[in-house]
Amino acid sequence: MYQPVKAEIISIGDELLYGQILDTNSKWLSEEMDKIGVRVVRKTTVGDDKESILQAFMAASQKAAIVLMTGGLGPTKDDLTKNILADFFGSQLTLFPKALEDVRSLFESRGKELTATNRNQAYLPANCQYIHNAVGTAPGMWFEEQGTIWMSMPGVPYEMKYLMEKAVIPRLKEKFTLPVIYHKLVKTVGIGESWLSDIISAWEDQLPSHIRLAYLPSLGEVKLRLTGFGDDQESITREVDEQIDRLLPLIEPYVYGFNHDTLPSAIGHLLAQRGKTVALAESCSGGYISHLITGIPGSSEYFNGAVVPYHNAFKAAVLGLSEDMLDSKGAVSEETVIEMAKQVRLKFNADYGLSSSGISGPGGGTSTKPVGLVWIACDDGHSCHTRKLQLTKDRTVNIHLTAVAALNLLRETVIQKSD
Amino acid sequence: MYQPVKAEIISIGDELLYGQILDTNSKWLSEEMDKIGVRVVRKTTVGDDKESILQAFMAASQKAAIVLMTGGLGPTKDDLTKNILADFFGSQLTLFPKALEDVRSLFESRGKELTATNRNQAYLPANCQYIHNAVGTAPGMWFEEQGTIWMSMPGVPYEMKYLMEKAVIPRLKEKFTLPVIYHKLVKTVGIGESWLSDIISAWEDQLPSHIRLAYLPSLGEVKLRLTGFGDDQESITREVDEQIDRLLPLIEPYVYGFNHDTLPSAIGHLLAQRGKTVALAESCSGGYISHLITGIPGSSEYFNGAVVPYHNAFKAAVLGLSEDMLDSKGAVSEETVIEMAKQVRLKFNADYGLSSSGISGPGGGTSTKPVGLVWIACDDGHSCHTRKLQLTKDRTVNIHLTAVAALNLLRETVIQKSD
Repeated sequence: MYQPVKAEIISIGDELLYGQILDTNSKWLSEEMDKIGVRVVRKTTVGDDKESILQAFMAASQKAAIVLMTGGLGPTKDDLTKNILADFFGSQLTLFPKALEDVRSLFESRGKELTATNRNQAYLPANCQYIHNAVGTAPGMWFEEQGTIWMSMPGVPYEMKYLMEKAVIPRLKEKFTLPVIYHKLVKTVGIGESWLSDIISAWEDQLPSHIRLAYLPSLGEVKLRLTGFGDDQESITREVDEQIDRLLPLIEPYVYGFNHDTLPSAIGHLLAQRGKTVALAESCSGGYISHLITGIPGSSEYFNGAVVPYHNAFKAAVLGLSEDMLDSKGAVSEETVIEMAKQVRLKFNADYGLSSSGISGPGGGTSTKPVGLVWIACDDGHSCHTRKLQLTKDRTVNIHLTAVAALNLLRETVIQKSD
Repeated sequence: MYQPVKAEIISIGDELLYGQILDTNSKWLSEEMDKIGVRVVRKTTVGDDKESILQAFMAASQKAAIVLMTGGLGPTKDDLTKNILADFFGSQLTLFPKALEDVRSLFESRGKELTATNRNQAYLPANCQYIHNAVGTAPGMWFEEQGTIWMSMPGVPYEMKYLMEKAVIPRLKEKFTLPVIYHKLVKTVGIGESWLSDIISAWEDQLPSHIRLAYLPSLGEVKLRLTGFGDDQESITREVDEQIDRLLPLIEPYVYGFNHDTLPSAIGHLLAQRGKTVALAESCSGGYISHLITGIPGSSEYFNGAVVPYHNAFKAAVLGLSEDMLDSKGAVSEETVIEMAKQVRLKFNADYGLSSSGISGPGGGTSTKPVGLVWIACDDGHSCHTRKLQLTKDRTVNIHLTAVAALNLLRETVIQKSD
């Protein structure tokens, strides 16, 4: 049987041991290794402490062909990793002129002068291959020692991801003969994990053993990941795709996309494709839906703008809602979200108007309008679709679930109008 | 010097290694240990694999006085922990009648019959102390072997937390003489880690050995964490607070808060305290600043609302900017953000108007207005403060850094107006 290439992940930092930071890096690294067929066999977290870091290196060297390290590389003095790596490999810190050049030009591009502390960041163990970090000052370091690859990266998530995507993953694919793996994600919204599982259980039972299914639920969404293992890319890809062709008719209303699609990117694609535009009136979601939409590059093509009439006094004044209606029906009502969606569509001359109003909590609830009650509406110029949600007691969760539900309502409205 | 009691955390489960689950348990455990003065020295994550689990036990036994284990205890066959614990301690699985009784009554209370699989959950290593898990079927197991406490708990977060709070933490406090620890976080914005480090290095050097400093940088912010160790709560609290009193004058312009304060919560506090309000005109930040502000409970007290005139056509129409100025100066210009801040302040009848306009990227840059160029402005009714930023090539990072800089500009404006 195929023996997978093994990897270890070592996360360095007192802040991880003291629980001040949630280690999302090692989860991301695990997922990326899984995607290329590398088996993560252990994760270790140690503090900014020489002995512990050395022990972790020692243990890793006995187990893995790849060791991915994050953290302990910033410019301040509590960062030790670089020195310990030099010791561990019997090497010493040397000035890497290219590293100095890179950190200097980063500072210049930001109109700042290089400090002595940052200058020190260009000193690296002599036996490493320097890897340029274009998005920060801490460099990447790649070592090949006794058949093991060691990669040291900063702990700042986007810097770590940059180095992995630009350098580490391509290099690992070159160095090792990795198995043929094909992943495909099917992304659903508007249905819970257990309902989904009930609908697709017969399909799931007929999957061959070399195709695995995983449910990856997150707030308001469930991703289904199919993973095929084989030794021929073409046949495993075809097999997985055929299984997905059988799956889709079962869950079609809930599927908004595949793989890297997100709900905002999928909606952006739908709107751009049709040459349509949207405008938002966000009350309880407070700008979050706009933020999700504008996170997508090129969103100015279909996103005209938004109004966040947060304080009730401005729902009438800024959006032109009727004060009588607000008085009689209240800000959190079907009538109000309908008017908000309509008015904002007209104001921004858009094809669709999307609105939200609700009680996010923790305060502000009443017996008839409890915390978690939210109304959303989508106006397409001909009719207005509304939905009433009863969410949770948690403000952050409610804001997120409101955004997911509103984006899904927009998605459904756009598709129904044009299919 | 005081030697802290050391703990290790071992998380067991293939799903953690493959990146399907984010390990929030070990962060929570770290925080709880930190609160009672136990020093977590290592966290290890291993899969559902006998050899790896044994290795982790072996390594932990050499290092820690307390070993907290989560996962690998459910009713299904890939759960090995219990058997491996029995092997490791040279013990064997035995029926614990009290455990059987407890799992049976849990099933009865849910109107279900005990299955054979769940019956097996009452077999535990003979040398353990059984600890009742009232919220699930997997029991807690407490071992005392050769001066080390071993505690095995299920991986389901609320079950693990139940066992920790009800049994483990009280027992640990009885078993060990724990030190007095006092943490304080000082939160800064608008200054990079290396500049901060340069400014405070003399102060840092004079810290006594029982007070430690850590830099915790994140995008646009740096947190400084002081941790004092001692045996008297009052004196260590006073000592740390005195050190902070010496620190603050050095970095006063950058400090926005302490401990759980966030930049949006600190600004909310400033505004609420003064009875002032703010309104936003967000172009390149696309609603993100509004989202950050409205994430704080009670923000409707000081946040009147926002306009996101994303498409250029609506900067004039919705906010009432002069088309001539937009034509001659462009949407990304000091003149435009000044007008945006002023107009939105008037529109929402607010004390402060805050605005952003820039090129988030990846597209849309020109040679004179490259990707990452952002203008922000804050109008207080008397004058308008502006700032020009040259950020990165990364859209997500640019949106975040714009928000941090704009919130900081608002903070500075509010403070200057009233101090």
